[in-house]
Amino acid sequence: MAPAKKGILERLDAGEIVIGDGGFVFALEKRGYVKAGPWTPEAAAEHPEAVRQLHREFLRAGSNVMQTFTFYASDDKLENRGNKLTFTGLQINEAACDLAHEVAKEGDALVAGGVSQTPSYLSCKSETDVKATFKKQLDVFIKKNVDFLIAEYFEHVEEAAWAVEVLKETGKPVAASLCIGPEGDMHGVPPGECAVRLVKAGAKIVGVNCHFDPMTCVKTVKLMKEGVEKAGLKAHYMVQPLAYHTPDCNCQGFIDLPEFPFGLEPRILTRWDMHKYAREAYNAGIRYIGGCCGFEPYHIRAVSEELAPERGYLPAASEKHGNWGAGLDMHTKPWVRARARREYWENLKPASGRPLCPSMSDPDGWGVTKGHADLMQQKEATSQDQLKQLFDRSKSN
Amino acid sequence: MAPAKKGILERLDAGEIVIGDGGFVFALEKRGYVKAGPWTPEAAAEHPEAVRQLHREFLRAGSNVMQTFTFYASDDKLENRGNKLTFTGLQINEAACDLAHEVAKEGDALVAGGVSQTPSYLSCKSETDVKATFKKQLDVFIKKNVDFLIAEYFEHVEEAAWAVEVLKETGKPVAASLCIGPEGDMHGVPPGECAVRLVKAGAKIVGVNCHFDPMTCVKTVKLMKEGVEKAGLKAHYMVQPLAYHTPDCNCQGFIDLPEFPFGLEPRILTRWDMHKYAREAYNAGIRYIGGCCGFEPYHIRAVSEELAPERGYLPAASEKHGNWGAGLDMHTKPWVRARARREYWENLKPASGRPLCPSMSDPDGWGVTKGHADLMQQKEATSQDQLKQLFDRSKSN
Amino acid sequence: MAPAKKGILERLDAGEIVIGDGGFVFALEKRGYVKAGPWTPEAAAEHPEAVRQLHREFLRAGSNVMQTFTFYASDDKLENRGNKLTFTGLQINEAACDLAHEVAKEGDALVAGGVSQTPSYLSCKSETDVKATFKKQLDVFIKKNVDFLIAEYFEHVEEAAWAVEVLKETGKPVAASLCIGPEGDMHGVPPGECAVRLVKAGAKIVGVNCHFDPMTCVKTVKLMKEGVEKAGLKAHYMVQPLAYHTPDCNCQGFIDLPEFPFGLEPRILTRWDMHKYAREAYNAGIRYIGGCCGFEPYHIRAVSEELAPERGYLPAASEKHGNWGAGLDMHTKPWVRARARREYWENLKPASGRPLCPSMSDPDGWGVTKGHADLMQQKEATSQDQLKQLFDRSKSN
Amino acid sequence: MAPAKKGILERLDAGEIVIGDGGFVFALEKRGYVKAGPWTPEAAAEHPEAVRQLHREFLRAGSNVMQTFTFYASDDKLENRGNKLTFTGLQINEAACDLAHEVAKEGDALVAGGVSQTPSYLSCKSETDVKATFKKQLDVFIKKNVDFLIAEYFEHVEEAAWAVEVLKETGKPVAASLCIGPEGDMHGVPPGECAVRLVKAGAKIVGVNCHFDPMTCVKTVKLMKEGVEKAGLKAHYMVQPLAYHTPDCNCQGFIDLPEFPFGLEPRILTRWDMHKYAREAYNAGIRYIGGCCGFEPYHIRAVSEELAPERGYLPAASEKHGNWGAGLDMHTKPWVRARARREYWENLKPASGRPLCPSMSDPDGWGVTKGHADLMQQKEATSQDQLKQLFDRSKSN
Repeated sequence: MAPAKKGILERLDAGEIVIGDGGFVFALEKRGYVKAGPWTPEAAAEHPEAVRQLHREFLRAGSNVMQTFTFYASDDKLENRGNKLTFTGLQINEAACDLAHEVAKEGDALVAGGVSQTPSYLSCKSETDVKATFKKQLDVFIKKNVDFLIAEYFEHVEEAAWAVEVLKETGKPVAASLCIGPEGDMHGVPPGECAVRLVKAGAKIVGVNCHFDPMTCVKTVKLMKEGVEKAGLKAHYMVQPLAYHTPDCNCQGFIDLPEFPFGLEPRILTRWDMHKYAREAYNAGIRYIGGCCGFEPYHIRAVSEELAPERGYLPAASEKHGNWGAGLDMHTKPWVRARARREYWENLKPASGRPLCPSMSDPDGWGVTKGHADLMQQKEATSQDQLKQLFDRSKSN
Repeated sequence: MAPAKKGILERLDAGEIVIGDGGFVFALEKRGYVKAGPWTPEAAAEHPEAVRQLHREFLRAGSNVMQTFTFYASDDKLENRGNKLTFTGLQINEAACDLAHEVAKEGDALVAGGVSQTPSYLSCKSETDVKATFKKQLDVFIKKNVDFLIAEYFEHVEEAAWAVEVLKETGKPVAASLCIGPEGDMHGVPPGECAVRLVKAGAKIVGVNCHFDPMTCVKTVKLMKEGVEKAGLKAHYMVQPLAYHTPDCNCQGFIDLPEFPFGLEPRILTRWDMHKYAREAYNAGIRYIGGCCGFEPYHIRAVSEELAPERGYLPAASEKHGNWGAGLDMHTKPWVRARARREYWENLKPASGRPLCPSMSDPDGWGVTKGHADLMQQKEATSQDQLKQLFDRSKSN
Repeated sequence: MAPAKKGILERLDAGEIVIGDGGFVFALEKRGYVKAGPWTPEAAAEHPEAVRQLHREFLRAGSNVMQTFTFYASDDKLENRGNKLTFTGLQINEAACDLAHEVAKEGDALVAGGVSQTPSYLSCKSETDVKATFKKQLDVFIKKNVDFLIAEYFEHVEEAAWAVEVLKETGKPVAASLCIGPEGDMHGVPPGECAVRLVKAGAKIVGVNCHFDPMTCVKTVKLMKEGVEKAGLKAHYMVQPLAYHTPDCNCQGFIDLPEFPFGLEPRILTRWDMHKYAREAYNAGIRYIGGCCGFEPYHIRAVSEELAPERGYLPAASEKHGNWGAGLDMHTKPWVRARARREYWENLKPASGRPLCPSMSDPDGWGVTKGHADLMQQKEATSQDQLKQLFDRSKSN
Repeated sequence: MAPAKKGILERLDAGEIVIGDGGFVFALEKRGYVKAGPWTPEAAAEHPEAVRQLHREFLRAGSNVMQTFTFYASDDKLENRGNKLTFTGLQINEAACDLAHEVAKEGDALVAGGVSQTPSYLSCKSETDVKATFKKQLDVFIKKNVDFLIAEYFEHVEEAAWAVEVLKETGKPVAASLCIGPEGDMHGVPPGECAVRLVKAGAKIVGVNCHFDPMTCVKTVKLMKEGVEKAGLKAHYMVQPLAYHTPDCNCQGFIDLPEFPFGLEPRILTRWDMHKYAREAYNAGIRYIGGCCGFEPYHIRAVSEELAPERGYLPAASEKHGNWGAGLDMHTKPWVRARARREYWENLKPASGRPLCPSMSDPDGWGVTKGHADLMQQKEATSQDQLKQLFDRSKSN
């Protein structure tokens, strides 16, 4: 019988670096298994081979955590906006747990079950109702015995704290991750205060994921850490940012960029950007370092390669990658071989090849959040009339 | 017993659109299975599940052709520049054929075996030697009974014509695809003349792949078509461009861009760029329309969606994709739902989020080609001394 | 005898808009009469026709104030860093006053005498010494009977307050203008507090000039106004920004941009940018609206045209300018005539024609200010050795 | 009595460099004396001090030629499109000659009288009619005894050749300058052939001015030179380009850029760009090197400074300019003093400070020329109805 894996808190308490995985919905959207808009994870049941393969690629890239592909897998979300599904939430959640466990065993990875913000909260349902939604997803994670739990992708710390309260009752370690930037949550609560509330609610690991680029996310987690330390509390820190440059975002993050979600390509980070991110996160005292939307396996590999000296090993996929471009010393053309150097890639300012495009965008700025009528969720598909009205309002902004 | 599939020429003769797949080396490099620099395809034998999954994704995206993952799988290339391998060329070529066949049967796709330019030619070996290299790879394709053959990624029409002469002896249909732009091949032979030489050598389908962006490639194939028609010949046309914008390339293509190969991200085409490409290629009379380096499954899906009216059906992966962003009508935020419209995406000028980067680059311009000492290939790994010399020369350019 | 002109405070108290002029040193540098580096105004005595002509152009463009061309005309500055001069400070200051008076009489403009920050302060001289420097310049302004006084271009509110204390003893109205941004002065005093100190020192008009682009300057003056109102004080407000876009500046302003001062061209504001600036400044309650470095007469004309409805008249130079491009309705080419519309110019995003250049820069960030040895001023020319040391330090930043 | 100045041909025959001046209409538009749209030079009579001052600034910057400010001063043009004038063409032309002579005498400059393309030609008038228009302007130049004549700013070589034929009858040296790019004139005549026709018509100096940026113009003149030499003819060459970067222009030049004429600021060349231009022009064998629209005195000074080693002297205005930024060694801040080096400015890639703007534009592409109804000129002002129609057509392009 295999020895028990070290748990997430044992690792972090021991000062180990834990490398997360990348975001599944965006990666699988590009591979043809997730629909942008509803962003639901039915592929876990429908096309398990595709989900398994992506898990495996992140494992090979150095991930120590396999997050179950259960994002937005609550029944209320699955039924949202006229989305037709042939699998129940239960089936999807169970399949996702099985896949994560299967691949985690191929290496030394932990399995994490995750819940995220709910349409119920946005539609102003009660604390009891919202918590009931979380509990329903939790039942599967308990039955499938995941290693720890993550409450992630919350725009409002209030809802995240409710989630943490529900999750911690399982006795499993709980991580909590907001999708906010340095300006704080959608109700204006600053990052430091958000972190304190999450730690008090029972989270052992706090941080941010999604919505902003790596450097912005690290900056936000630094503010969280300052808040927690100032309050005399203790926590571990996590960061799982976008793999897109977002210098032009307002407080709502990349959702409001005009390029979201189908024109983000020119913003994709290079592997060298990832080296800088990994080092910056490490230097900020963050030890759970992963990714979210836009991350591909090679991005996680770059994080693993940057932190290889600290971790003491390279990931499996580095067999297919020379450090800082070293593999190019085998290229046919000599002037490409001349690029097999760290200084070359570290200093490159990559061109977009898009001279008719700007370098930054004006984000949408509706500035509404939970409580505003615009955000009440509905189950029916959006009608053509509704779309037209939206378009007209959008243009006049 | 299943009815025989229609062959490539039957399809093209009937006026059907044949959609190709995308480039495997770049896609699998990002997934952790191919090493940039040598770019060799040992993953077919080492990690068949990864190669199979990528075939499947292109099939779901609408590809009618599964190209065997045998790029650079000639023994001379496999041994090039100190690359250590645990599989023989034979094993890799056979595994690649099996994988392509396996997935092709899941749909209506053909299997194509490919050969490409050789270190032997660049190192000024004789016609006999170069042809012998092609023959060696061919044996596997014949044994595994691929549906047709492609001689692709040739910078010199001379070598491509030699390849065609070898391939046509098998009796299978032969396609020939150069990696050149509107300025012609590396010896200055214009595209029209290149095409005529390839048709005369026996190619039934001619065109270009790799090295340039879609619009540049379509322009080049148009010049080929004009040349063939002016010569009173007949052919079908193919195009399999990069998924990177390359307005700033010189005649050597994207290899010479300073961003090649690890900083190309900001140049990646959006799916909407692919719609324009597919329409432009179709309007130019090209009927074999696929992709090369940088293409991900969603890029091929976009080509399939643009040409769905002509083909009469959508690909399987379109279940997970609303036409022109229609899936967004199920998004949580109303201002994102307002983007569920063709005009929105068609007119978007996506920002790079990189205000410190330029929009175009100065390509390297060594301007050497076959016959120049700089391009003689060696089997030993490049030494540190050689690298330093290269760097110094590169800087002084 | 001509009726006395209305004074600056009478105009502002009556709610009138007062339009300033543009910066003389940059405009005359381009015309060949001022040397970048020392930036001294000896042209007033050396080439009066050039200075007179520039005054006249600003008058025609709508300026209500002719500032004497006496920037950096203190003797300590004139002798700084090995600058050889054939005119004394007294001669230059007197000539500048005469020119301003001469042109002011051609219209309804006031003459303002100005003092600005001194090398003495930067080099840590005493309050008494610094004040003595201001007094020396003042003598000329009193003798030549200027209409009011401006203490402008101060990076430290402490020195500006000293200047105001000296100037107000003349009994003439005193305006005070710092070259700071929203982050405050070089010692970190926020804009609101700066403004309060200046008003308490005796300034009737407070604001900012130079160092930042128009929108940033308006934002800073808004913060000043908030500070003054919160303190229960009263003042008029002025703004005289750069005509360069500076979204990438740190607290030291455009001096630290790598483009300063000889590569700023791509940042120059269009006349349409100036319309937005004038309206924004007016809406912020600012009534003394002018310009600084980079402003050419057509920029001031644009400010005058935007505010023509409020002022009740167009400036003389508008005879040569159709509103919002209306003059183009007489252009030879019909597609250029189609641009004779406000919406066209208001929405244009002008291209730089520089695809190899970025859109933003990393400013230098030495972050030193008064009191740091790096800023002690010397009279001898910088030696080659000193230059080399500077360059090496600059590169390592 | 002063010794006679050396004539233009004597200078060029002796191998001297002749530096031209910059474009007056754009420079004076910014100063408030010329109206964009009609672009007529009534300021010569209305505001002589402004015109005189600009001549003087170019003289100080190193210009050897004062072109009379008589652009578009033909009566048919002055009356075009409802432009009301209080001066006759005769008065304007005479005043312009007097001003040019007056300033030329202050140095060693020649006076050149110029004619340019006519509305008559665009409106398909006969050769006789068009030539009569040129003759009318010529009478003043003869009476005022200019030193030589320039036929400049012609889009069609046919009309330019007619002009040369008229001008050469005066016995004065004739220069001919088209506003075309490397693709040739608006009727598709290539640059080489254009140059041959102009030389055969009697021009001693041929070249291009306006419409394109310096590097494009030098490239065009090179093609002209090749054509002339291939035809066994002899000529001197001139180039007077825009001071705007125009990499995105089509054959009609900057008129068709969406930024023309009121949004060109981000395209303005720096003085360092001018150094490169001057050297490139000199190396191409061009000896009459000047400027057109967008050139300010400091641009001409940069040309003079680059060619100072060949000319043997610096221009007067260089007293106020250190070579390659040397004047900065007297700057207050040490990190700015560190920029007092040629390598710094030579390698700077200046940012636009406009992250919401693209780096290139899509030019208008009506593609019509002389003979097309769209270009028939009228004397009445464009009506609102006509404008609306133009706008609609423009949008649908």
